[in-house]
Amino acid sequence: MELARLEKQLGFLREIDRLKTVVRQSPLLDRSRRENSAEHSWHLAMYALLLSEYANGTVDSNRVIRMLLLHDIVEIDVGDFPIHGGSSAAVQAEQEVKAAERLFGMLPENQGDQFLALWQEFERAETEDAKFAKALDRFQPLLINIFTGGGTWTENGVSLEQVLSRYGPVIQKGAPQLWTACEQWVARHFAR
Amino acid sequence: MELARLEKQLGFLREIDRLKTVVRQSPLLDRSRRENSAEHSWHLAMYALLLSEYANGTVDSNRVIRMLLLHDIVEIDVGDFPIHGGSSAAVQAEQEVKAAERLFGMLPENQGDQFLALWQEFERAETEDAKFAKALDRFQPLLINIFTGGGTWTENGVSLEQVLSRYGPVIQKGAPQLWTACEQWVARHFAR
Repeated sequence: MELARLEKQLGFLREIDRLKTVVRQSPLLDRSRRENSAEHSWHLAMYALLLSEYANGTVDSNRVIRMLLLHDIVEIDVGDFPIHGGSSAAVQAEQEVKAAERLFGMLPENQGDQFLALWQEFERAETEDAKFAKALDRFQPLLINIFTGGGTWTENGVSLEQVLSRYGPVIQKGAPQLWTACEQWVARHFAR
Repeated sequence: MELARLEKQLGFLREIDRLKTVVRQSPLLDRSRRENSAEHSWHLAMYALLLSEYANGTVDSNRVIRMLLLHDIVEIDVGDFPIHGGSSAAVQAEQEVKAAERLFGMLPENQGDQFLALWQEFERAETEDAKFAKALDRFQPLLINIFTGGGTWTENGVSLEQVLSRYGPVIQKGAPQLWTACEQWVARHFAR
């Protein structure tokens, strides 16, 4: 065993403990506190484990799970950019690329390159796997808002039209059947 | 799309949000609070993603990741049984089986059966995949204690001999090279 290699891997695993302290906008379903990005990543991986039958194209659920496990790690350096925050997409993208290079650069080269490539694939959202992963990453917070009777929509005064435009295209592209179901829940929510 | 099937899947995904409120003994590395079982499961999946080269036998890292994502879900009903807690293994096992049946029973039958089988495989720790998953589930809290200068060992007055006997056999069986490294770190820790 090459100890220097193991030390790099453990250095990375130690560093990413910090994802547990990155707080998102979405609440837990019991509304006791906000969700953090580590437990969010776990939950999304469980979504991928269960829902790949609703993907638009043929997806490799193992790749989707891996993508979702590491998709938010850049937030250790740059924090979470909320859907309803109005932040600049270009600024966000630039900061996240730097974070990905720093964090995945801590790993042995073969693993760091693999992680960086998987993260870039997620960000570009061009492959079927990435489109489905992106769809789940929108679907989960939408469900939280439905389940908690409004969540971040109520907090931010988000309208029906904004929900449709901010969640619709991404979920529709990766998981059209799930979006069909969402449209009904969202319509019912805003009718109340 | 069969709506009743999707509703079962979402019912389960909604229920397991509660894993985020199950608190473990181990602290975060910044010692700001204790770790919860959802973020612990995410962290372990990342361990599996990176460290499968140290498994004793040939393992399928995709299966190990899936196993680790769901290995603690039973804690929603029964809570976390700490390594240094002295609770009865038989009582724990019985309660966990009931919890697994209730929780995985919420899913469509084909998925529920699959999850239950994967969880049972983890618990029995007989296959190479399960032995490696179990090893990581011991390795991660050991590292937390090393990284935080004592952690739950200091809190519970755990001796060197107890560390060796409580962590050693499980880590040794699934990831002998990692145990070799652990022995050095543990010896150094207790020498101070």
